[in-house]
Parts: sequence; C-alpha cells; structure tokens
Amino acid sequence: MNAPAGLPPLPTVADVEDAARRLRGVAVRTPLLESPLLNERLGGRLLVKAEPLQLTGSFKFRGAYNRISRLSPEERQRGVVAFSSGNHAQGTAYAAKICGAPAVIVMPADAPAIKIANTRAYGAEVVLYDRHKEDREAIGNRYARDRGMTLVPPFNDPYIICGQGTVGLELTAQCAERDITPDAVLAPASGGGLISGIALAVKSRLPDCSVYCAEPHGYDDIDQSLKAGRIVSHSANEPTFCDALMAPHPGDITFGVMSQQLAGAVSATDAEIETAMATAFHYLKLVVEPGGAAALASVLNGKVPCANRTVIVVASGGNVDSALYSTIISRTPPV
Amino acid sequence: MNAPAGLPPLPTVADVEDAARRLRGVAVRTPLLESPLLNERLGGRLLVKAEPLQLTGSFKFRGAYNRISRLSPEERQRGVVAFSSGNHAQGTAYAAKICGAPAVIVMPADAPAIKIANTRAYGAEVVLYDRHKEDREAIGNRYARDRGMTLVPPFNDPYIICGQGTVGLELTAQCAERDITPDAVLAPASGGGLISGIALAVKSRLPDCSVYCAEPHGYDDIDQSLKAGRIVSHSANEPTFCDALMAPHPGDITFGVMSQQLAGAVSATDAEIETAMATAFHYLKLVVEPGGAAALASVLNGKVPCANRTVIVVASGGNVDSALYSTIISRTPPV
Repeated sequence: MNAPAGLPPLPTVADVEDAARRLRGVAVRTPLLESPLLNERLGGRLLVKAEPLQLTGSFKFRGAYNRISRLSPEERQRGVVAFSSGNHAQGTAYAAKICGAPAVIVMPADAPAIKIANTRAYGAEVVLYDRHKEDREAIGNRYARDRGMTLVPPFNDPYIICGQGTVGLELTAQCAERDITPDAVLAPASGGGLISGIALAVKSRLPDCSVYCAEPHGYDDIDQSLKAGRIVSHSANEPTFCDALMAPHPGDITFGVMSQQLAGAVSATDAEIETAMATAFHYLKLVVEPGGAAALASVLNGKVPCANRTVIVVASGGNVDSALYSTIISRTPPV
Repeated sequence: MNAPAGLPPLPTVADVEDAARRLRGVAVRTPLLESPLLNERLGGRLLVKAEPLQLTGSFKFRGAYNRISRLSPEERQRGVVAFSSGNHAQGTAYAAKICGAPAVIVMPADAPAIKIANTRAYGAEVVLYDRHKEDREAIGNRYARDRGMTLVPPFNDPYIICGQGTVGLELTAQCAERDITPDAVLAPASGGGLISGIALAVKSRLPDCSVYCAEPHGYDDIDQSLKAGRIVSHSANEPTFCDALMAPHPGDITFGVMSQQLAGAVSATDAEIETAMATAFHYLKLVVEPGGAAALASVLNGKVPCANRTVIVVASGGNVDSALYSTIISRTPPV
C-alpha cells in the first residue's frame, strides 16, 4: 500500500497479485471473447472479458472472497453482513458459504427478483429495506454491532478492490498469451472498486494502455469527481435502469486509485446500453445485465474509439430478470 | 484410421489430436462452465462445455477449418461448397474466409434469419432452396461440378469428425486441470459428427466414462440405428424446433464410430429443451439455441442421471433469433 498526501493508504498491484493467488482454483478465469463479425462492423478489434460467466454471475465474487477468506476462525463464526442491490449480495453470500461463515445481506425491496432469490439460494439471510425511507448502512451497522458480524463493504476496501482487480491481471495475461496489445481497457463503475483494481493491474503491465470507467448517463459522479479533483456526488435521484450502478459517489480509496490511474470516465444512455445488451446476445451469445453493459455501450458509441485499435471492455455481470431481458432483446437490434 | 469389417475406414484419436494441432490459436478453447446453485438443485455436478462461445457461435467452425485448411492452393482458389440449415453454413463460410477460399452455401429458405444473415456477413454466396421441393445435395453437387469447388460435408467426413472431436480433447484436458473425473459426457447429435469426434477423444482419455448422444424427441435415428445395428432413418417429416438437428440418418463413418464408442442415445422433447435454454440463461448466462440444448435437456430430465455424479454436457451452439429466444425465456422457468 502507498499513501499520497491527503489520501488514505492505497492498494498496489502487489496486493492484486496476492488476491490472484488466493482466488486461484476458486474463481473462474473468465474468457476474453471476440466476434469476427463485430470486429468487422467496428473496423477494429473489440474483446470482451466475460464476467457474467464468473461464479454468482458477476465479478463481485472475487472481491468478497478475497475479503472473507482472510477472516480469522472466530470472525468467520460470527459471520458477515453486506448491503447491496444484488451482485455484491450474491458474491458475498456465496463467498461466505464457501468460507463457512453465516451471512446477512441487506437488500432494497425493489432489487431484481433474480438477485434476491439467488442471494437466498446461496444460503444468506436477506433483510429487505425501503430504498426511499430507510438507511441501509444503519441497518447493516446494527447487525455488525448486535451479532459481532464483519461488514463486507461493496467497494471502498483494499481487499475488495484487489479481488476485483484480478479481472485486470487475467485480461493482461490473456492478451500476452494471444499477442494482443490493447490500446484501451474499460469497465463499468458505480463506487469504482472494479475499475480501481483493474487499473492497478493493467497500468502495471501495460503502462501505455489507457484505462477508463463507464458510468450510466446522469450517474457520472466519478467523472465529476475526477474533473473536480475531489469526491462529488451525482445529482440523479431516480433509480437507474442499471440497478448495479447506483452508488452516489466513489469512496476515498477508490477515488484515490482512480485519480492516479484512470485516463477518464465516459458514460452511456439507457438506449445505448440496451443496444449493447442486444449486441452481446447476437454476436457473443453472452447474457449481460444493464449495468454490466455500460462499458460495451460506451465503445459501441465511440466514446472511446475502437476503429483501427484494440479495445477491451469488461462485461461485469449477467444477473438480469428474464422478463426485462426478453423485452430488451426482442425490441432492440444489435449494432 | 482403422477399418472394421463392413465399415469404411474410421478416424482415430490420433486424427483428433492432429486436428487439435491445426486448430490451436485459431479456434476458441471454450470454457467448461458450472453453477453452484444448479449443482445444488441437481444434487450432483454438471459442467457445460460452452460452444456458443466458439467462433461463428457453434462447434461447426472446428470441423470446417480442419477440412478447408488442408486444401491445396489450387483447391482453395476454386473454393468450397456446403449445404446446411445454418451452423455448418456459418462455420464453413468463416473457415473459408480465413483460408482465402470463396464459398457457396446452399441453405433452406426457411432457416433462421440470423443464420442466413451471418453466413452472408462472413462473405459467402448464399443459395436458398425450397426444403420441400428441391434437393440440396443436387444443388451442391452442381456447384462442385460446374465451378470445381470442393464439397465440405456436414458430418460424414473424417476431417469434419476430428475437427469437432477437439471439443472432446479440450474438455478432458480441462477436467484434468481441475481434478474432475466425469462419469458421463453428452452432446447433441444430428448426423453424429460432433459426438463421434468427442467419443474418440473422451474414450481414449477416460475409458470408464460413458458417452451418449442426445437427439430431439421423434428424430431418434441414431438411437434406432444403434439398436438395429444398421443405419436407420427417423420417420419424422415435419421440421423440428431444433433446426440444427435435422439430418435424416447418420452417415456410414459416424455410424461406424458411434457403434464402437457410444453407451447409447437419449432424447429430449421440445418442452424439455425450452426449459434447458431457460436454465442456461438463468444459471450460466449463456445463450443456447434449441438444438444446442438437447444434451442439457436430457440430463435435466434424468435421461442420464446426474445425482451424486459428475456429468458434462456440450452446449453446441447459440445461433437463435432474438424473437424466438425472448419468447422462450419469458414464458419458461428454469429448473
């Protein structure tokens, strides 16, 4: 860890490498997919790191396992608590199960049904709350206090960031195996845990590669924060279509890493994200949820150019209800 | 190759290994996926070899490339011709493109729109015919004769079988890497090219593992042929929902291999296949087309037991129109 002036101690690539050792043989080394037809359409080379194929259907398992597997036997026995709209919930629930720790997950009552059902199926106790009237952090903290449970934060934690960062180590290794030199790497961002970890890994291996985060249009708190040089909240107050990307602002650790490592933040509209989901269906046969498609959508819309270049996007999750998914792909043509 | 009494020379595992060398760095080494929740539901371990993630969206690219890449420069210049309802069409079109050979693909006019459009997008000349009035073999043979093109058969060819068999070599290697010993391996079958190649590979590496093919209910010509000890045609005369699995009977080479290597043939109804597609969507985030889901459907319905065992199914393709796919997943719950 290093500690720049005014920032908390920040994780380094060595911490990501340590997380990779811990996750080896536990997490899935997800494939780096591409489509010759899509490449031709874009006039460049686009590769998709397929985290919907990760255990629990999103990258979130990586960070949760890296955190929970480091708990002492006593801490494991008391269990863990997390609050999440869904993917962190499932990742934490399953990581806790593997580690033999009970888990309480605080979820908004209006989270996608598939995410609530799966979190329960992984053996966690789900506590639902009203997003408009209740404070999920207060509920989580109460469980932590009353039952002695360890809080597993969604993003602003070095172990969480470094677990997610194993996505970046894997994709650089997969590029090396196939003689690919990417010009840019993008991943969706909410609190910034995933992209922070990826940036640490990618910039250490490929210093000339530009790393961007992709936010839903209107939820551009990371873009605003990077431009302001301080943590800023977005001003949206409606739930977004990208239910996985609703954090109001980055944390101090993720902001610190992103300030040092990112080339910038881009964004995608709901319509662009629907097209990206249909494109992943058509060309890649991969189910991607709305929030998981923000980086792909940004590249398909030229926010980061792909023509005559090689760009890697992370599809971060695939936990989408069948009703919503079928509505989107039946009405939306791919690019 | 070996030649049992009354059968043509049959390919061996050495021919599959030769195909694997040729396909290395060209075809995708597709992942072997599993879902902890689905395993718990089944009381066993189910792994899915994900060929929808192969180039062109199905395993068919493997065999086509193994065949076309062996043509002489003169043969490549004259080009190739194939007849196919869709996946072999796309696999052949793209393999021909990579090898610099022009391709004519004879397709039924009622094939899924996505398969016709993609075959054209890979640069092939598509010739449509009426499935009820015209003979596709006659059309294909005319192109072969008039333009000196090489016919790329869909399944009854040693190079095609061995290219498809690389699926089997990969899955045995992936099992070895993860200390997995499968009790059974299943793949969908129409003419039997895929399952023949897989059986050669799997039985050479894991002689105690049982290999089965899965046919659509009513299109059980392989089951009938294996039981009769001779090639028998199925009696269905309507197109099946599994448009990829419509060959009327196995070929003499595939029948020869299957007679020696298979433990049997199982089948799945349309309703069971829809449930399998919804299950792959829900638990694996993988888009699977009807014909590609026949093996998964057979296991989910206990035709080959999975409880307290380890079973591998091949999901053979994912080229399904968005309208059909969204209809199926919106109305069909997963297991």
